[in-house]
Amino acid sequence: MMAPPAGPTPPEGLVPGLPGRYYTDEDHFARERRLVFARSWQCVDRAEALAEPGRFLVYPAGDDSVLVIRGKDDRLRAFHNVCRHRGARLCTEETGATGALGKSVRCMYHGWSYALDGRLTAAPNLADLPPGAREQLGLVPVRAQEWLGYLWVNLDGQAPPLPETAGRRAAAVLGSPAKLDRYGVGALRRASSITYDVAANWKVITENFMECYHCAPLHPQLTAVLPQFASGYGTMTGAAPDGAAFAAGRGYSLSGRAAGPRLPGLEPGDGQLHALVLYPTAFLVLTPDHVAVYRLNPVSAGRTTLVVDTMFAPGHAESDDFDPDDTISLRDLTVRQDIEAVERCQLGMRSSAYQGVLVPAEHAIIGFYRDVLGSLGEPLPPAYEHG
Amino acid sequence: MMAPPAGPTPPEGLVPGLPGRYYTDEDHFARERRLVFARSWQCVDRAEALAEPGRFLVYPAGDDSVLVIRGKDDRLRAFHNVCRHRGARLCTEETGATGALGKSVRCMYHGWSYALDGRLTAAPNLADLPPGAREQLGLVPVRAQEWLGYLWVNLDGQAPPLPETAGRRAAAVLGSPAKLDRYGVGALRRASSITYDVAANWKVITENFMECYHCAPLHPQLTAVLPQFASGYGTMTGAAPDGAAFAAGRGYSLSGRAAGPRLPGLEPGDGQLHALVLYPTAFLVLTPDHVAVYRLNPVSAGRTTLVVDTMFAPGHAESDDFDPDDTISLRDLTVRQDIEAVERCQLGMRSSAYQGVLVPAEHAIIGFYRDVLGSLGEPLPPAYEHG
Amino acid sequence: MMAPPAGPTPPEGLVPGLPGRYYTDEDHFARERRLVFARSWQCVDRAEALAEPGRFLVYPAGDDSVLVIRGKDDRLRAFHNVCRHRGARLCTEETGATGALGKSVRCMYHGWSYALDGRLTAAPNLADLPPGAREQLGLVPVRAQEWLGYLWVNLDGQAPPLPETAGRRAAAVLGSPAKLDRYGVGALRRASSITYDVAANWKVITENFMECYHCAPLHPQLTAVLPQFASGYGTMTGAAPDGAAFAAGRGYSLSGRAAGPRLPGLEPGDGQLHALVLYPTAFLVLTPDHVAVYRLNPVSAGRTTLVVDTMFAPGHAESDDFDPDDTISLRDLTVRQDIEAVERCQLGMRSSAYQGVLVPAEHAIIGFYRDVLGSLGEPLPPAYEHG
Repeated sequence: MMAPPAGPTPPEGLVPGLPGRYYTDEDHFARERRLVFARSWQCVDRAEALAEPGRFLVYPAGDDSVLVIRGKDDRLRAFHNVCRHRGARLCTEETGATGALGKSVRCMYHGWSYALDGRLTAAPNLADLPPGAREQLGLVPVRAQEWLGYLWVNLDGQAPPLPETAGRRAAAVLGSPAKLDRYGVGALRRASSITYDVAANWKVITENFMECYHCAPLHPQLTAVLPQFASGYGTMTGAAPDGAAFAAGRGYSLSGRAAGPRLPGLEPGDGQLHALVLYPTAFLVLTPDHVAVYRLNPVSAGRTTLVVDTMFAPGHAESDDFDPDDTISLRDLTVRQDIEAVERCQLGMRSSAYQGVLVPAEHAIIGFYRDVLGSLGEPLPPAYEHG
Repeated sequence: MMAPPAGPTPPEGLVPGLPGRYYTDEDHFARERRLVFARSWQCVDRAEALAEPGRFLVYPAGDDSVLVIRGKDDRLRAFHNVCRHRGARLCTEETGATGALGKSVRCMYHGWSYALDGRLTAAPNLADLPPGAREQLGLVPVRAQEWLGYLWVNLDGQAPPLPETAGRRAAAVLGSPAKLDRYGVGALRRASSITYDVAANWKVITENFMECYHCAPLHPQLTAVLPQFASGYGTMTGAAPDGAAFAAGRGYSLSGRAAGPRLPGLEPGDGQLHALVLYPTAFLVLTPDHVAVYRLNPVSAGRTTLVVDTMFAPGHAESDDFDPDDTISLRDLTVRQDIEAVERCQLGMRSSAYQGVLVPAEHAIIGFYRDVLGSLGEPLPPAYEHG
Repeated sequence: MMAPPAGPTPPEGLVPGLPGRYYTDEDHFARERRLVFARSWQCVDRAEALAEPGRFLVYPAGDDSVLVIRGKDDRLRAFHNVCRHRGARLCTEETGATGALGKSVRCMYHGWSYALDGRLTAAPNLADLPPGAREQLGLVPVRAQEWLGYLWVNLDGQAPPLPETAGRRAAAVLGSPAKLDRYGVGALRRASSITYDVAANWKVITENFMECYHCAPLHPQLTAVLPQFASGYGTMTGAAPDGAAFAAGRGYSLSGRAAGPRLPGLEPGDGQLHALVLYPTAFLVLTPDHVAVYRLNPVSAGRTTLVVDTMFAPGHAESDDFDPDDTISLRDLTVRQDIEAVERCQLGMRSSAYQGVLVPAEHAIIGFYRDVLGSLGEPLPPAYEHG
């Protein structure tokens, strides 16, 4: 595939987007796999999904497959889902319970067995193995961490801990480190998790999340309850340092009904909507009565798996006054509207005439370009130095 | 993929075909996309398909998508089907009417709107845009031209006008510039348009069209009405400067019934069949009672979309003496027979033993090879210097 | 695709497998196509499948297609399945009878006809062809040979005859050249031929066939009749020079019933099971009452067509005491168990953490690695010099 020509120069003051091949070229995507995704924390799933010892789940990460297991000591651990003997994939289901009463992972090919902490515990003819084999041939560990009630994995192993990076960024957006803590995300109960197969590059999805210039034309149901969004300026523009305000008597719901019971830890001033990107592949939406987490798993240059979780305070769903489906439906509708738009962009980015521009309401995206180019070790064009 | 070995040398006097990789290799196809298709006029559709202002159609051209619209001034214009803001594909249906009572093209993502002549007319927050944005951010135009009642587009924009190239070639084949005019192709009425998905390279389809050496074994129904074709020598060999003669009392029809009413502008000597290649991707068949146009849209090295239109004089279809389906059926049958043959060639061209040869009855194809190699800027082998 | 990192060094004494990219990379596969498969004998089918003159079959070999025909002189010949004129694939069915009462192969495109021995015999306008064309434009021959009742083809044409290579290797495994002859494989009757589409590299399938370390965990039905296999040491380890012994009163069958009537030529000491690899793409299993042949046709790095034939002595199937389905079912079950395992390995070999190791019971596979690296012209790592 050829790089598309540079296209016409945008009028002075408009900021050009990244070239189309950054979104469509599989070689570029392979570089991102290596330099962006493998080196950063990927959000795998809610830790509560693995409630008992021996429960596992499998997380696909490009050609890699990560096996996450809760151990007998109740710790969550992650490993490469590869037998150390001949390389067979150990677990092929998305999730389940390990065999032998939850005590071990056994390879179906030659019967090598591993403890839930990864140690090789049994293999036919193991007595014949040379010294050290049993100790050295445990499952290859993958770095794992719990944060916000989620399990995150890091294939590279060099990334700093999440609170130091994503946590510090979130604190900067929210104005204080304590504010995110007040939402108590780790203790919330997930009411819904919807998976979307999106025919678009992960960056297009991120850029869509970062601007609200599209909200008026694309999301009439959303702007009905969040009138500020109709202005084109979302929460990341600096226009709303305290978050976007809901219309009087309205909450985040398809019917427009008022918000449900407030999350228990919030202070009186916390009642707005905040949207944050936890670079590179997770988003966070904080509202007074629920929290949503978006998890992106890039599959190829033009395809991304997106999972959206919606979480409420424990007991929330049982409240007589509150319909969680009303909230979930507005988010699902909004996500589907966004997907139609980003899939059209993905098509257009292959065009020889493609050259996107950012209007002022979208300038928060420039910060995302800086992050991406920084991860790739590429020089920063002057147009991206400010904004 | 490896280039196949050169293969055995053909006997003296037989002319070798192009190497197999010219037909099967995707990298070679990408070069043709750039140097052949993008630089030449592509036949999009009958201009009458866009009858009213605001009617549009979308023409796929590799990674590009071309949007053709009839303006309020009744002019047909073509644009890249890409929003100038963030690159979203503007129209996703094959054909339709633009919105707002046929007055504008509106991008569903952020609501940017374009007049039917391409000017940017409205965008949310447009007042905030820097000076010049409105003027500079119109749709990117694609060069377009009407000829023979068809709309043609040229992505490169450097090609000379169609009458200067295709028209002059057609005149050379037909013996005079006036003869093509006498068929009045622009005023004919399309009775049928059939789309074929062909698993073969566009050049194999062209070569098949250029020789009649296959007519006797492959097309018994065709040679029944055009006995000259059974000789193996078609109209492009120099054997029939005045076109191929129909059998006495026969016309171009599956039943063999006599030709229908003559096209109104023809002179007495115009009563034969002529077949012309409008290089690179359109063919023309002229007969006394109808005209057919073949339009090729190359999709990949091994796949081509072929559309065949059949057109009669206005009023023809209503004549009691004439059955247009009889004509259309013979062409459809003939095309399907050809498709089976060219798809077998496409398979064989991947073989390490492939080396095609042209017999004397096929030497008109040498001229096509010269055109292709010329477009690609490749040196002409001595074997292709004559013929 | 990137080469996976080297991974951790295996404990001393364990032998590392080939790198993952040898199994997953399409460029590496293209090298194997050229240097391994094209240069060796490929087992096409049972010669009896082409019983009468004019019967043909088509064998796919990557981008090549080989046409095997029985001639009027009863000889089997192989040709490239490509017309010498324009390259059309001559025969598109898998098997059938040639036209014109079994006397010729006729290309459907332009009617060129070839005798069953490949000579060009007729072409429209052949009189116009230059001198020598008729003689020089016969079908391009492919080297073919019958051995063990099978037809084998060799695209390269340089390989030594099969008995000199595969035959000598088989004799070395069996202890004498005469032993293989005593099974009379050429005269056996095929009772079953099952085709499996395996999502794994051909080498993974071969390595699975070469070790029995997996037999206890994966094949309980097989080890029930062949208890030696439960030890993890198969017939290729040197542990069983006379073959693997059946349990007393048991034969190769799903029910465990005793073996059927012995193959007629066997001597009293020949009553064990032998498994042999006929490098690169055929396997042989010899038992007292039947012979199985495995034929691999590699399609891509990650896909292989596997055909397994089971053959008995003539008259065997009619015997009242014997149920061939009982034998065929055990093999089919065993093959399906193996396919699940090798497909899991194929998935794991893409992992960045992949590094397989061979335990002592699997060291016969080192000889296979030597063969592969030798075919590829690659230097032999010290770890593969012995074993």
